[in-house]
Amino acid sequence: MPDAAPVIALTPGEPAGIGAEIAVKAAHRAVPARLVAIADPALLERAAARLGLRTRLVDADHGSRHARGVLRVIPVRLAAPVTPGRPDPRNAACVIEALERAVAGCLDGAFDAMVTGPVQKSAVNAAGIPFRGHTEYLAERCAAARAVMMLAADDLRVALHTTHLPLRSVPRALDADDLERVVRVVHGDLERLFGIDSPRVSVCGLNPHAGEDGHLGREELEIIGPTLERLRGDGLAVTGPLPADTAFTRDALRRVDAVLAMYHDQGLPVIKHLGFGRVVNVTLGLPIVRTSVDHGTALDLAGTGKARADSLLRAIEVAARFARRLSGAPRRAAARVPSS
Amino acid sequence: MPDAAPVIALTPGEPAGIGAEIAVKAAHRAVPARLVAIADPALLERAAARLGLRTRLVDADHGSRHARGVLRVIPVRLAAPVTPGRPDPRNAACVIEALERAVAGCLDGAFDAMVTGPVQKSAVNAAGIPFRGHTEYLAERCAAARAVMMLAADDLRVALHTTHLPLRSVPRALDADDLERVVRVVHGDLERLFGIDSPRVSVCGLNPHAGEDGHLGREELEIIGPTLERLRGDGLAVTGPLPADTAFTRDALRRVDAVLAMYHDQGLPVIKHLGFGRVVNVTLGLPIVRTSVDHGTALDLAGTGKARADSLLRAIEVAARFARRLSGAPRRAAARVPSS
Repeated sequence: MPDAAPVIALTPGEPAGIGAEIAVKAAHRAVPARLVAIADPALLERAAARLGLRTRLVDADHGSRHARGVLRVIPVRLAAPVTPGRPDPRNAACVIEALERAVAGCLDGAFDAMVTGPVQKSAVNAAGIPFRGHTEYLAERCAAARAVMMLAADDLRVALHTTHLPLRSVPRALDADDLERVVRVVHGDLERLFGIDSPRVSVCGLNPHAGEDGHLGREELEIIGPTLERLRGDGLAVTGPLPADTAFTRDALRRVDAVLAMYHDQGLPVIKHLGFGRVVNVTLGLPIVRTSVDHGTALDLAGTGKARADSLLRAIEVAARFARRLSGAPRRAAARVPSS
Repeated sequence: MPDAAPVIALTPGEPAGIGAEIAVKAAHRAVPARLVAIADPALLERAAARLGLRTRLVDADHGSRHARGVLRVIPVRLAAPVTPGRPDPRNAACVIEALERAVAGCLDGAFDAMVTGPVQKSAVNAAGIPFRGHTEYLAERCAAARAVMMLAADDLRVALHTTHLPLRSVPRALDADDLERVVRVVHGDLERLFGIDSPRVSVCGLNPHAGEDGHLGREELEIIGPTLERLRGDGLAVTGPLPADTAFTRDALRRVDAVLAMYHDQGLPVIKHLGFGRVVNVTLGLPIVRTSVDHGTALDLAGTGKARADSLLRAIEVAARFARRLSGAPRRAAARVPSS
């Protein structure tokens, strides 16, 4: 009998977005995992009907392999009717419940990984639920000392020290102890998840030209430089602080396994340029495996059937690869239904 | 008789850097301009000897065409001996004098354009001369209302609203009136210098996700958005504010002639990744034509002869193209020596 594929929980995210459509599209492709969608079956059925994709929704413990056109479901019923393109805060609690179930299942071993679709943060916040982003949410739920957001596409990997902060809050968020934790998480998970021996990481400065010896800011001299020096002293292969427009040149990228940027818009433009649709969002530093699409809810595309599932398929592939690597050997057990 | 090529003043910049070497290399290539180096002849001679390139230094008004291996020179003697890789503040005044002569010659019509090599800002500042960068220097010398730094490589052009500021100073440097001036300068010079009819410009937000409707910062709602709305009302083709990681995707770039980024490290990583060595720095908003290399003084390479002249050659080509476009018709007059 062939080995069973990893069990991957899939949360489609915002019900008024493209999440359900791309989940159904993924169910019709060959994927190296047993997908379990945690969502309202009615939402998935409507998406399937709209796409003209005959899809059979089955119990979470159905079968030991992925069959095209069949999607395992753990039902989480929505509270309000869904109009594509119009997020409704009344459904926000259901979106979060799906995440809760996915995390719980990953923590108790029912799932080998979770893959998330895009959430509309504003709708969740409008419902009075504090939610800054998946990365921050998962860190808290898993009691992780430090979760790190990384985007990965082929051989390019970019991790972020700070993520979803207004630019004016970035400089004061820089912190030597936290930076040290982040570099160690990146280093550790390049080995553990990506299977890279002796990973090499370059680290950007905060300021243009990495501060130019203090002429353009002192964070490199006072925080980043000394922290990296300490890490190098501990034997980690980490270079920098480098000017961002040097760190992302092709020559510089060839010499490292990942770049750590200090903030969102310093790190993401190059990888989004090179890999849009092939980029996977990976959360490092968690006791569980979590990957995600690299795009938003695409409210303008929701309901049109035009949204592409490429990024979701890549996220599933990467999560499956991580799960197999962590398990050491391929799993043989059948899918187990999570207890929550 | 063939038309004479534009006369281009070339300032090699920091004497201890790679400027003199790449100037000599450029003199041995076919370039569409009559180059006039404003530099110490002894420095150029030593660079030529080190490179093994037999180079004839001649008067600035020599001949009406570029001849390979011949370099016109306006001498500016250095004050102190030069050790490659070791900038000496005693030579800073000479570096600035070369710039002064280049600007003066451009303003009085002796030169059609100026192309600058890299200056070591720290050495100039150490000499007690305030110098924030060529762009700022040229704006002041030319009494320009607003000079704008743009990097250009093939069809990708990136302009910066703020340039060489510590990151913590960027948010408060954002200003509606100034942003409006910058967009108008970019728009105007895409037409005037680049010859693009009805140019289209996209503008990045300041914050990640362009502020996400105020959840990640309010500058988009309060400053950038209203300014762009006003400009669109005036008929300018300007889109945004866009998230930086959207503005630089291939799809988004295909739809515009230039991207305006709010700050240095938001704008430059993609163009440096794609075009390192082919990127030209262009100053927009000046009454004169000025282009520059996209690299620094490369002190580690100085004296080795290994520095490549690619970026300088591109800067010369682009400056020559701009000069021809502005002149309306190719010049016939012989080179004139500037009066200063």
